[in-house]
Amino acid sequence: MALIRSVFQDELDGVSQSLVDLSNMVSESIKKATHALLESDLKGAEEVITSDEKIDANQHELDSRIIDIIARQQPVASDLRALVTALRMSADLERMGDLSHHIAKVARLRHPANAIPAELRDLVNHMGTVAENISRKIAVVIETRDTAMALQVEKDDDEMDKLHRQLIGSLTDATWTHGVESAIDITLLGRYYERFADHAVSVSRRVYFLVTGTFAS
Amino acid sequence: MALIRSVFQDELDGVSQSLVDLSNMVSESIKKATHALLESDLKGAEEVITSDEKIDANQHELDSRIIDIIARQQPVASDLRALVTALRMSADLERMGDLSHHIAKVARLRHPANAIPAELRDLVNHMGTVAENISRKIAVVIETRDTAMALQVEKDDDEMDKLHRQLIGSLTDATWTHGVESAIDITLLGRYYERFADHAVSVSRRVYFLVTGTFAS
Repeated sequence: MALIRSVFQDELDGVSQSLVDLSNMVSESIKKATHALLESDLKGAEEVITSDEKIDANQHELDSRIIDIIARQQPVASDLRALVTALRMSADLERMGDLSHHIAKVARLRHPANAIPAELRDLVNHMGTVAENISRKIAVVIETRDTAMALQVEKDDDEMDKLHRQLIGSLTDATWTHGVESAIDITLLGRYYERFADHAVSVSRRVYFLVTGTFAS
Repeated sequence: MALIRSVFQDELDGVSQSLVDLSNMVSESIKKATHALLESDLKGAEEVITSDEKIDANQHELDSRIIDIIARQQPVASDLRALVTALRMSADLERMGDLSHHIAKVARLRHPANAIPAELRDLVNHMGTVAENISRKIAVVIETRDTAMALQVEKDDDEMDKLHRQLIGSLTDATWTHGVESAIDITLLGRYYERFADHAVSVSRRVYFLVTGTFAS
């Protein structure tokens, strides 16, 4: 009977909920990291660095749980595929947490100075907002399996790529006066935000594929 | 009887062999990418970029095979753990291929100019050699489960980190005369080599953990 839910179904829902929770932790983390970077906020940077341990620990716990479910339930091919996909998504989310952590470390390294020159504040803030939004969206995509939103994630990533090109463009501009050390910081920060969005796309595509059996284009 | 090997054991060996093959492809790829970068070799760069598709395809095939083995054989916990670990190793190796591909793309972008200033040639060549060696070693670690060699991989990664710091140091040195665009290239290239070695360490630690049940320190 449809009303009787199996233990296995509850376990699958638990995995999905843990992925949603991880996505939300990662969203908080990138939001705080961007704030720490723009405001040269040492305390905020330290919080991001500490919270990354919690993200890693949660990912570890989730992965063990998934393997345990596979071992006990011996799922059929489609459920097995969903569980293996969950392992891959948790790896993407853990990596997104690492990237927030890297951003916070640049903020901490340059404190009390600010790693971001005044004329790039708006651009970096924009990249931070896109990153936060994209990770909020993947929480929804995981929870609701909404393929329309999965496609929006692709658009957000296009937006991130555009901002990233603009950022690198500003460094090679003749008006750049902040020297090579600052250019190195900005190059790496740009890469961290860009990779953050790439991993979000990866999560979203995995959900899309699970739901539709085809690749998002 | 020990002499009678099961189909399942053959399948596990096949997975291990495919991981070894992937490691060797990745070693070739980073070797060629470094050569293309240092010699501004367009043809070599194109070959690396094309061969990355082959690495991706092989990884896909391997992952499908692993999931199929899990579905059919319903392995006990320790074998299941080995198979899940194989999935993670294949993801690391695929990413190492991507990083070679990124390096080759810098070579192609700057061709016919050379992305590497003369005074950094030796250093970048050294990073390329460490990267090639570390990926050759992980092939051996996967094949032989040699934990002593797994620990050597950690040392190689320390060496890579040292070279990477040296590279970044040379950019922020007062004698740097190659401008910001070149500094951006070098920053990204340094990051690609460093991440390449990080993924090798990740592969090696996974094998170490499978063999010993403890983490390499």
